[in-house]
Amino acid sequence: MAYRAAVVGGSGYTGAELLRLLAGHPEIEVALVTADSNAGASVGELYPSLAAAYEGITYEQVVPTDLAGLDLVFLCLPHGQSQAIAGELVDTVAHVVDLGADFRLPVSDYEQWYGEAHSAPDLVEQFAFGMPELYRAEIVASRHVASPGCYPTSASLALAPLLAAGLVEPTGIVVDAVSGVSGAGRGLKATSLFAEASDNVNAYGLLNHRHTAEMEQALGHVAGEPVQVLFTPHLVPMSRGILATCYARPVAGVSLSTDGLLAGYHDFYADEPFVHVTDGSPATKATLGSNAAHITVRYDERTNTVLAIGALDNLVKGASGQALQNANLVLGLPETTALSTIGLMP
Amino acid sequence: MAYRAAVVGGSGYTGAELLRLLAGHPEIEVALVTADSNAGASVGELYPSLAAAYEGITYEQVVPTDLAGLDLVFLCLPHGQSQAIAGELVDTVAHVVDLGADFRLPVSDYEQWYGEAHSAPDLVEQFAFGMPELYRAEIVASRHVASPGCYPTSASLALAPLLAAGLVEPTGIVVDAVSGVSGAGRGLKATSLFAEASDNVNAYGLLNHRHTAEMEQALGHVAGEPVQVLFTPHLVPMSRGILATCYARPVAGVSLSTDGLLAGYHDFYADEPFVHVTDGSPATKATLGSNAAHITVRYDERTNTVLAIGALDNLVKGASGQALQNANLVLGLPETTALSTIGLMP
Amino acid sequence: MAYRAAVVGGSGYTGAELLRLLAGHPEIEVALVTADSNAGASVGELYPSLAAAYEGITYEQVVPTDLAGLDLVFLCLPHGQSQAIAGELVDTVAHVVDLGADFRLPVSDYEQWYGEAHSAPDLVEQFAFGMPELYRAEIVASRHVASPGCYPTSASLALAPLLAAGLVEPTGIVVDAVSGVSGAGRGLKATSLFAEASDNVNAYGLLNHRHTAEMEQALGHVAGEPVQVLFTPHLVPMSRGILATCYARPVAGVSLSTDGLLAGYHDFYADEPFVHVTDGSPATKATLGSNAAHITVRYDERTNTVLAIGALDNLVKGASGQALQNANLVLGLPETTALSTIGLMP
Amino acid sequence: MAYRAAVVGGSGYTGAELLRLLAGHPEIEVALVTADSNAGASVGELYPSLAAAYEGITYEQVVPTDLAGLDLVFLCLPHGQSQAIAGELVDTVAHVVDLGADFRLPVSDYEQWYGEAHSAPDLVEQFAFGMPELYRAEIVASRHVASPGCYPTSASLALAPLLAAGLVEPTGIVVDAVSGVSGAGRGLKATSLFAEASDNVNAYGLLNHRHTAEMEQALGHVAGEPVQVLFTPHLVPMSRGILATCYARPVAGVSLSTDGLLAGYHDFYADEPFVHVTDGSPATKATLGSNAAHITVRYDERTNTVLAIGALDNLVKGASGQALQNANLVLGLPETTALSTIGLMP
Repeated sequence: MAYRAAVVGGSGYTGAELLRLLAGHPEIEVALVTADSNAGASVGELYPSLAAAYEGITYEQVVPTDLAGLDLVFLCLPHGQSQAIAGELVDTVAHVVDLGADFRLPVSDYEQWYGEAHSAPDLVEQFAFGMPELYRAEIVASRHVASPGCYPTSASLALAPLLAAGLVEPTGIVVDAVSGVSGAGRGLKATSLFAEASDNVNAYGLLNHRHTAEMEQALGHVAGEPVQVLFTPHLVPMSRGILATCYARPVAGVSLSTDGLLAGYHDFYADEPFVHVTDGSPATKATLGSNAAHITVRYDERTNTVLAIGALDNLVKGASGQALQNANLVLGLPETTALSTIGLMP
Repeated sequence: MAYRAAVVGGSGYTGAELLRLLAGHPEIEVALVTADSNAGASVGELYPSLAAAYEGITYEQVVPTDLAGLDLVFLCLPHGQSQAIAGELVDTVAHVVDLGADFRLPVSDYEQWYGEAHSAPDLVEQFAFGMPELYRAEIVASRHVASPGCYPTSASLALAPLLAAGLVEPTGIVVDAVSGVSGAGRGLKATSLFAEASDNVNAYGLLNHRHTAEMEQALGHVAGEPVQVLFTPHLVPMSRGILATCYARPVAGVSLSTDGLLAGYHDFYADEPFVHVTDGSPATKATLGSNAAHITVRYDERTNTVLAIGALDNLVKGASGQALQNANLVLGLPETTALSTIGLMP
Repeated sequence: MAYRAAVVGGSGYTGAELLRLLAGHPEIEVALVTADSNAGASVGELYPSLAAAYEGITYEQVVPTDLAGLDLVFLCLPHGQSQAIAGELVDTVAHVVDLGADFRLPVSDYEQWYGEAHSAPDLVEQFAFGMPELYRAEIVASRHVASPGCYPTSASLALAPLLAAGLVEPTGIVVDAVSGVSGAGRGLKATSLFAEASDNVNAYGLLNHRHTAEMEQALGHVAGEPVQVLFTPHLVPMSRGILATCYARPVAGVSLSTDGLLAGYHDFYADEPFVHVTDGSPATKATLGSNAAHITVRYDERTNTVLAIGALDNLVKGASGQALQNANLVLGLPETTALSTIGLMP
Repeated sequence: MAYRAAVVGGSGYTGAELLRLLAGHPEIEVALVTADSNAGASVGELYPSLAAAYEGITYEQVVPTDLAGLDLVFLCLPHGQSQAIAGELVDTVAHVVDLGADFRLPVSDYEQWYGEAHSAPDLVEQFAFGMPELYRAEIVASRHVASPGCYPTSASLALAPLLAAGLVEPTGIVVDAVSGVSGAGRGLKATSLFAEASDNVNAYGLLNHRHTAEMEQALGHVAGEPVQVLFTPHLVPMSRGILATCYARPVAGVSLSTDGLLAGYHDFYADEPFVHVTDGSPATKATLGSNAAHITVRYDERTNTVLAIGALDNLVKGASGQALQNANLVLGLPETTALSTIGLMP
């Protein structure tokens, strides 16, 4: 194969999902998989799903010097940990794709929303924001990529055409979204237990969920002006999947219709392999295991409100699939390599 | 026991749930259970959960004259069917509690939202709107009750204190809600299949779900002026439960805070046995099998928006439990008789 | 109320379920709830479902002297911990009902299956084995009760009539059972996470699950001779519920039929309020939240095998409900007090 | 592409799953998709997951003459319907792969277990039984293939090495298995509803499930003598997945150990790309969406019983994946083409 890659933090859900996708990639070889807390365990022990494809592969300790010279390093670490290691990588490996939150935001925004100082502020500018549909030029022009979060991807793709066209107000936007439990990661906490999460829905992170900042950044990028979003995430009893239902107010004087909006969406995403605009109502299950985002839009004349909906698999288009899409871009490979658009349904 | 009741339409989910609750009621005897399509089957055959409590009880055909003289008739019929039978009941039985949509709305609203003529318009005024926390006086003063829908109950209880106090604008209100699949009833359709609904979330009834009209009615009732709501329901993979996340804009000039709003909510519902105001984020599972609604409220200074959340069990407080609460009221019994406030958690 | 009780270990699932049931008990008052690791937290904080019924009640540290003089102490502790505290309770409180494994088995069996020494071997004889349908006389004659495990209850009730009548061989019995994830308790482990347990079934505890010993004990008790069982438990993606599918070989020379076996089962359990013998195939959901066990039996002439199936809610009849049933018995109350036979279905 | 194929009955779950797999096949082009009851609908309308990959493709009516000349026809029809159409296909198309039950069994066995006459008995011999690991030679030598059922595949693969080696008795075998709800297909019935199947497990088809005959056939094939199986299937709340837990008695005089059995299993399946022998306990989720079967084996000295467990995805290795594996074989393509061994976990 052409390229040698490492997956750093390969025992969490985004790491395991990346391993699943990379197993089918014809140009990228997984040279190394690390996982500090699970070092010494075999990949197949933690994820029997991967046992056959990664036979004999064992999680290593993270040693940055071991990564030097690789073509590609994926960082699948809890937020805050990529900062600590990236400095040793940005110059010694060809490309870093970070799946964490550390390099997605300007330092000031990071520090505001994450409530802590950034330990590697000088590196932030070396990372493009990895949402290819809205930042493709920036990604291709960059060596390193900060792949965005799951909620921001679904909401931003759902709302972007409206803001790009200046059809809705940049304030008063509401994003009400639900996520499957894998979004909380493999960390052990009571709210992630089956017996607590099943038959249950509840909202969390009320008013101040950190992903708000990424939505405002991506939508501000397409709008060309600051955008303000109120975001409410919910936990729902499914393993994977995010659905973002978004509300925005039309700018005064513009004449809208559902048909017109749908046509605009079809145009906006006409060349995008992973965005499927549908006249129906998107279902998360249609995207299960795939890198697709399904979106739709409606105009409600009665209340003068635009409704936009986006669905995706939080571990694929919302994390590891998008990271691989970014890797394909920085490596100059076809963007769709090893990425399916077909969900596992039923 | 003091009162003899019939459950008409006892083979659907709301009918079965009512039978579950009535089995523990010390003053109401179930004299008759009907179910046209399942006539002849035993209750325990369709619902083995009820087999021991209803041993030997068989679903009968609906014959209105068989109901004459009863103290109480619960109608658990698909929308449109209560109209056809209620005329023969309103004068021959002491109390009718209708769980369907037929007598909840003024005729003009019914015809607008349901897209069909009402066949018994003269009867509508004989039914009080059965949301006890907001219409208790009307219910107690009425012989018959139209018990409200599941979504309207959750959203109206969550938003009512805001509109009663004139704190939010009556327009621009958004209700974004999720429901368990039992809300779709026992009718056979592909979207209700386990293999389709599991691992899946999708919005439905976009822009024009019929429950909007009940929300606007109940909230307009407490506001003293017309209220406009945009409502988006979603199906989520759980059997029971509704969570409504609601957004409203403060009226100009009012000074709000989360603490102040929570205090107001605690006051508003201080004497309500089935409304639990919580400073936390309500979880549907905390209400599972109970007649409780858990609600909270927040003020977001950043976006100047009020967020209110309500959770309940769609088959209990959202249907059969509330119907029994209404029955207790019209019979003059303690309102909490045979109704638990404790959810099945985990 | 007539009796004052404590729930020791009230923050785990069996403790919380006991609190749910006790809230509806007319004769037992919950005087104290303890939970070492959660001491200081309110009950409603951990279980919002219980917030209204236990308003203002806070988990205390376990201090055995605080329990002295109580009529009833429920121990809802991880296995091994009841031994450490029971010595201080058996003489100072009227009745101890232990939901753990510490006093269910003879010391030698305990030490064999649990692989550790018993620290209070002299106390074991003071506890009756709390499976009322098979040990009622022993329970009533005892002050203290060791309530059995969830799997043993389902399998023993399903198989008991066969062994009591000498119809099947005491060896070669297979119990293949599934359990909901709440059976693993509230402890944090990866296999209990929603994202791991959903869409998943796997067997565990192969060949040597500890509950085997209780099954052999209970069935040996009714058989009057030693019984040998091979037991395979499985984890399935539901919160509650156990279904045990059991296989046994007829003794030589006996002539069996499904009708005859069903008639025998109906007779055997004719006076039992919580055992529902059904000609159908039991569903765990029919028992959800109730103290009922649903069982059936079949004879397969083709393979000369008897099949017996038992379903129950692992947290109720399999734990806290049965513990309360035992408490009612030792207190001389009606055995069914505060225990429902109706499951939450759908 | 090299080969042109039709999927007949492409609107059911096995048909849709086949379309998912075929979309990634480099040598097979889907020329036609039929579905009588959904003729005229687009594939993407019924399965939004497939919308992008099958854009513009519409379900057609089944017209056998339209199929003439194709290289491959997959029949994904309810049992009994393949008989009606196969006669017109066996000579006009190069290969038929039937996913139904019509051509899996000798006519006498079919008529016994299905309780009805076979309408095309002469055709049965033209179909090989499509379980490649046990019948590869027969498949390769045949033009047409009858792909086996989901339960038989899991149980037969789990037990085959034991019977091939003559280690266990051919009678007294018990197969206790669970299946996800997609196994019941897309047909509308109450037991497949989410609200009924969630939080629920129950056994069905007690004593006489039709898949018993396929297990006895496949195991008899490897044993070289008749084999008798008692099979109990259960429905569990997941969309996909089958786990078969199997019990067999060692033949007298043989000395067994778990280590020895595992070694034998590893040998038996050493060259099989889709059978993963594990020393752990197989989890259905590890196979989700993949064509892999995960199996293990244990010897219980205490009860002198062999325990074998097999896990797979009922729609892939249990249906459409295995059908494609068979198609690859009859076409002379690499058997693994377009078939993944990696499950979607978590």
